Amino acid sequence: MIVILKQNVESEKIDKLVGRFEDMGLSCHHSTGAHTTILGIIGDTSRVDIDAVRAIEIVEDVKRVSEPYKAVNRKFQPDDTIISVKTDGFESKLGGGFFGVIAGPCSVECEEQIVSVARRVKKSGATMLRGGAFKPRTSPYSFQGLHAEGLELLMTAKRETGLPIVSEIMDLSHFDLFRDVDVIQVGARNMQNFEMLKALGRSGKPILLKRGMANTIEEFLMSAEYIMSGGNDRIILCERGIRTFEPMTRNTLDISAVPVLKHQSHLPVVVDPSHAAGIPWLVEPLSKASISAGADGLMIEVHNNPSAALSDGAQSLTPAQFDGVMEKVKAQLLFEGKKLSS
Amino acid sequence: MIVILKQNVESEKIDKLVGRFEDMGLSCHHSTGAHTTILGIIGDTSRVDIDAVRAIEIVEDVKRVSEPYKAVNRKFQPDDTIISVKTDGFESKLGGGFFGVIAGPCSVECEEQIVSVARRVKKSGATMLRGGAFKPRTSPYSFQGLHAEGLELLMTAKRETGLPIVSEIMDLSHFDLFRDVDVIQVGARNMQNFEMLKALGRSGKPILLKRGMANTIEEFLMSAEYIMSGGNDRIILCERGIRTFEPMTRNTLDISAVPVLKHQSHLPVVVDPSHAAGIPWLVEPLSKASISAGADGLMIEVHNNPSAALSDGAQSLTPAQFDGVMEKVKAQLLFEGKKLSS
Amino acid sequence: MIVILKQNVESEKIDKLVGRFEDMGLSCHHSTGAHTTILGIIGDTSRVDIDAVRAIEIVEDVKRVSEPYKAVNRKFQPDDTIISVKTDGFESKLGGGFFGVIAGPCSVECEEQIVSVARRVKKSGATMLRGGAFKPRTSPYSFQGLHAEGLELLMTAKRETGLPIVSEIMDLSHFDLFRDVDVIQVGARNMQNFEMLKALGRSGKPILLKRGMANTIEEFLMSAEYIMSGGNDRIILCERGIRTFEPMTRNTLDISAVPVLKHQSHLPVVVDPSHAAGIPWLVEPLSKASISAGADGLMIEVHNNPSAALSDGAQSLTPAQFDGVMEKVKAQLLFEGKKLSS
Amino acid sequence: MIVILKQNVESEKIDKLVGRFEDMGLSCHHSTGAHTTILGIIGDTSRVDIDAVRAIEIVEDVKRVSEPYKAVNRKFQPDDTIISVKTDGFESKLGGGFFGVIAGPCSVECEEQIVSVARRVKKSGATMLRGGAFKPRTSPYSFQGLHAEGLELLMTAKRETGLPIVSEIMDLSHFDLFRDVDVIQVGARNMQNFEMLKALGRSGKPILLKRGMANTIEEFLMSAEYIMSGGNDRIILCERGIRTFEPMTRNTLDISAVPVLKHQSHLPVVVDPSHAAGIPWLVEPLSKASISAGADGLMIEVHNNPSAALSDGAQSLTPAQFDGVMEKVKAQLLFEGKKLSS
Repeated sequence: MIVILKQNVESEKIDKLVGRFEDMGLSCHHSTGAHTTILGIIGDTSRVDIDAVRAIEIVEDVKRVSEPYKAVNRKFQPDDTIISVKTDGFESKLGGGFFGVIAGPCSVECEEQIVSVARRVKKSGATMLRGGAFKPRTSPYSFQGLHAEGLELLMTAKRETGLPIVSEIMDLSHFDLFRDVDVIQVGARNMQNFEMLKALGRSGKPILLKRGMANTIEEFLMSAEYIMSGGNDRIILCERGIRTFEPMTRNTLDISAVPVLKHQSHLPVVVDPSHAAGIPWLVEPLSKASISAGADGLMIEVHNNPSAALSDGAQSLTPAQFDGVMEKVKAQLLFEGKKLSS
Repeated sequence: MIVILKQNVESEKIDKLVGRFEDMGLSCHHSTGAHTTILGIIGDTSRVDIDAVRAIEIVEDVKRVSEPYKAVNRKFQPDDTIISVKTDGFESKLGGGFFGVIAGPCSVECEEQIVSVARRVKKSGATMLRGGAFKPRTSPYSFQGLHAEGLELLMTAKRETGLPIVSEIMDLSHFDLFRDVDVIQVGARNMQNFEMLKALGRSGKPILLKRGMANTIEEFLMSAEYIMSGGNDRIILCERGIRTFEPMTRNTLDISAVPVLKHQSHLPVVVDPSHAAGIPWLVEPLSKASISAGADGLMIEVHNNPSAALSDGAQSLTPAQFDGVMEKVKAQLLFEGKKLSS
Repeated sequence: MIVILKQNVESEKIDKLVGRFEDMGLSCHHSTGAHTTILGIIGDTSRVDIDAVRAIEIVEDVKRVSEPYKAVNRKFQPDDTIISVKTDGFESKLGGGFFGVIAGPCSVECEEQIVSVARRVKKSGATMLRGGAFKPRTSPYSFQGLHAEGLELLMTAKRETGLPIVSEIMDLSHFDLFRDVDVIQVGARNMQNFEMLKALGRSGKPILLKRGMANTIEEFLMSAEYIMSGGNDRIILCERGIRTFEPMTRNTLDISAVPVLKHQSHLPVVVDPSHAAGIPWLVEPLSKASISAGADGLMIEVHNNPSAALSDGAQSLTPAQFDGVMEKVKAQLLFEGKKLSS
Repeated sequence: MIVILKQNVESEKIDKLVGRFEDMGLSCHHSTGAHTTILGIIGDTSRVDIDAVRAIEIVEDVKRVSEPYKAVNRKFQPDDTIISVKTDGFESKLGGGFFGVIAGPCSVECEEQIVSVARRVKKSGATMLRGGAFKPRTSPYSFQGLHAEGLELLMTAKRETGLPIVSEIMDLSHFDLFRDVDVIQVGARNMQNFEMLKALGRSGKPILLKRGMANTIEEFLMSAEYIMSGGNDRIILCERGIRTFEPMTRNTLDISAVPVLKHQSHLPVVVDPSHAAGIPWLVEPLSKASISAGADGLMIEVHNNPSAALSDGAQSLTPAQFDGVMEKVKAQLLFEGKKLSS
């Protein structure tokens, strides 16, 4: 961490500041020029509050040299984290060369729908089933999900197919309902719901953490750090598009985030091309691009009848379209030497 | 709502779609050209799920003509909503010509701090006291607030000064602790925490709802609609800057949002220049600009000793600086014919 | 400038780098920790190419401490620059307490139009006349302006009213046609047309430089630096909204840019609320907000018949609406102690 | 095009508006509800100025149904455009299954540099040589390129290797110097330099048009439309990253733009991963992702000695690194069934 001091500061004030850093177990190196004094702060600065330093009277500016995250940082854990999720007779792995495909409808609507979609996507090669029981909707007048009943229907689909279940939690008070959900999804709108992150950090459950639509990669990793610093290292990062000025796609898939996240962190990274684009025919090229960029998995919306879907039908694939995408995905995984986990 | 159909669609499919709208109590007007058929959907379309319509097989695109929000819409309630908050011997009003100034530290740190800041800002003309007991921090290693103890200290400051209290809630499980908080703040990161919005909609408490840093004005109003459709119409909207590419300020204050929100909705609008800019010397010009743009109030961070603040000190004013800003604010309110409420 | 070196670099490579900086007349201060070596580069670093330094093999990262602009920097010229433009019997000043209002149609369409608008806006208090002869249009099929004929019509309007003329140049090959134009406007799309900036820097003409819709404040000042380093210090900066995700307004007026630009530079700053918002009824609140934020002037589109305008009619005020806005502007200038120049 | 009228408009005003559209050869279909009247405008609306319509007194809003571009639209020319560039004994093709790789240094610095880089990249499989003679630099104090001398050095490199030359034009006055340049590049900052686009549209030269860093896909295609409507259909579109809030990469590569551009237009699309990311180690994953997303080519910066580059060295690959990337590119083109043109 580099602290740039204001001009002509009295030396005793500098000494006091240096003392403050030394009390935190850090060491300081001066660099004094004609006009500027710079302090180089050496040691573990991840616990230093950069805003608090910036507010100090004699400080002009502060710049970080090292990352503010530790537990999720690849520097301190070079090997890929592999997330393994098991159900009766089925193991789904993500990371470290294992590739996962999480597929299913935006919302669970009825038993017939979720079981039939589950069977279809499993046949096409999906390794986990997604389905929303609690749905974050912009409008209070839109369908909000089947709640507890939706989770029960997902359990039925798991029993029928063996596919592990991924479903989104919207409030901590629902946590007990997620007991048998295999992977708890934290949605983009909750990426900085810190109370939720802390609670999930104590839970031991695998977490699929989606990037907020206006959050930086550093903030994304800091949210993962919240979970991991609570003791839970079973975290899957999910890039799902960021908000930009471009209106042609719903969000802008930040494809560079995939290799950057893999470079900075040991956690596995999946991409959700359905939400990123909001357009069914973009799912295939974006899925392929994600594999090429180094993703460890995909999350794809599939609905038996998108026209009649109660939410987000516009971006869903039919099971037949999904099957076509999976043919391409399998061929490319073979080319890349990655293993579709099952 | 306008529905643009794909080319060469069979007429019976169109009839089926028209029937579906008519079943919802809406009427449809055709407009058929050589290549394009357009349906004009007339009636209350706020409950129509635009994504679901877009997913229908024969639909090319859908465009809304009227706003998706109703309760917060000025069209259906032309008069300004006035939010009144009373404590013993003190009434603070916001909206309809009454201007409010909410001031105080980012975090409550100790009794001496919060009481002395409360006294100072009251003397300068603040109409409510803000103070964080639960703090949303990007890093798990940063100070997270004093929690229940912080709220108790705020109550002490209220008893000492009469100022109503504004404090941020971060999770619904803490709701009971906010019993004596006068205005519950929903932070930018929770603007689309829909479960929280629904619960607050049932609470009857005044809510200060901050705009998410990457949320559109329409999404902001839809979040207010969540609260209001639950039966609670005591909502204060707060513009606090949006995320853009410009690095010189922490966020970009969307000043146009003030007149746009006032035009679209009857709810009062306050501006938080401290978080928008992140720079103390920008608070004065941005406060003045907000008044000129039609704001009903301001929310300003004030700390007795910004250098030693446990969070966000960099953007806080000292009480003396705040007093200087308030002199300008009072003069301008006089010029604008608005009343600093107390 | 701070240069952070990679870990475990051989000392002779560091010496070579230090030598390179010393050859440029700069001095270097080392700060060596257990893992990190930091170089503090002291002196005039505005001519150092930060990208070139970042590419050096042993360099991890580079951070600027001081601004890369000099001529436009208020640090080296504390007094406000005042731009004075004279015509027969008329002087228009901008900056240093003098406020200017530049009004007129987006495009010059015919003599009757431009002369009548010029008379109307002068009567309402405008201090310069704007009018486009060369129009940057997104579509090749839209009206592109009257070109030389348009500039001649502006000269007629100047003779009739005495108002100085502001008009946009789109290509250097047209420069001779702008001989009698009083202020040459560089549009947002040309803010980084560096060949044009260099040529205008040699011209001695007053320049109104618009901020590009996705350019940072630092890039904006660097473009002004191009003009000023060429010898021309008669530059007016114009904030006209930046591109963000918000669709309700055409662009997002970056109101904070006004006080930031005034703080960083001695050049006058005007705001164009017409292009920023794209909505006529927002011109009044945004004009008022701009004055409060410290602007030295406004640029407002006025058309005698917006419905029939050949370009951008949607955002133009009628002369009567403009007169109403000017009443408010004059009252507020009086309140602020600024002088509407004429 | 759909025109939504204001409420309670007199029918004769509507008739007048309808007449205006009919005079343009368009037909109008009414759709009148209790509160809203909608006009569906049928015909070739690409020449209708949407802003002018929006400004009409009785108009509430206007929405386009069909694209405003025609010449570049795939609807009217379904087959891929193939750009062929020939030099003595060498033909480079782009589009329609032919893949091109444009490689070389940001700036031409001296004969030895450009010739040696040209030889190295040709050996690795590049199909064209890029090199800047005129450089758009944010700072007037940075190296601006060798100008005419730089173009001559590029000709030397062409003679030595046979590789066609791609170089950026910054001002029309330099056009004659580009006589022997094979492909003229229009940089991101000039994407909406409409006078330049018009002139290049008359030139018959192949044009590589880069997307502006804050321009939408529609604006990008409209700029191509400017060139094509002037009679020049030899256009290569280049996605090079857009400006967002994410600071980890210089720009955000909009990977979705690749399939969207291919879907909307028949023109070939190349990706510039060097400028998009600004980080050498991201070039490989982003190049691979671009191929998977359907790109017709790549543009990659290669410098013999990035540490000593006079501009943008930080993002350049060494020839050896480029060779490594090309091994991956070739393998993937084989997998995708595309042909590296030469």
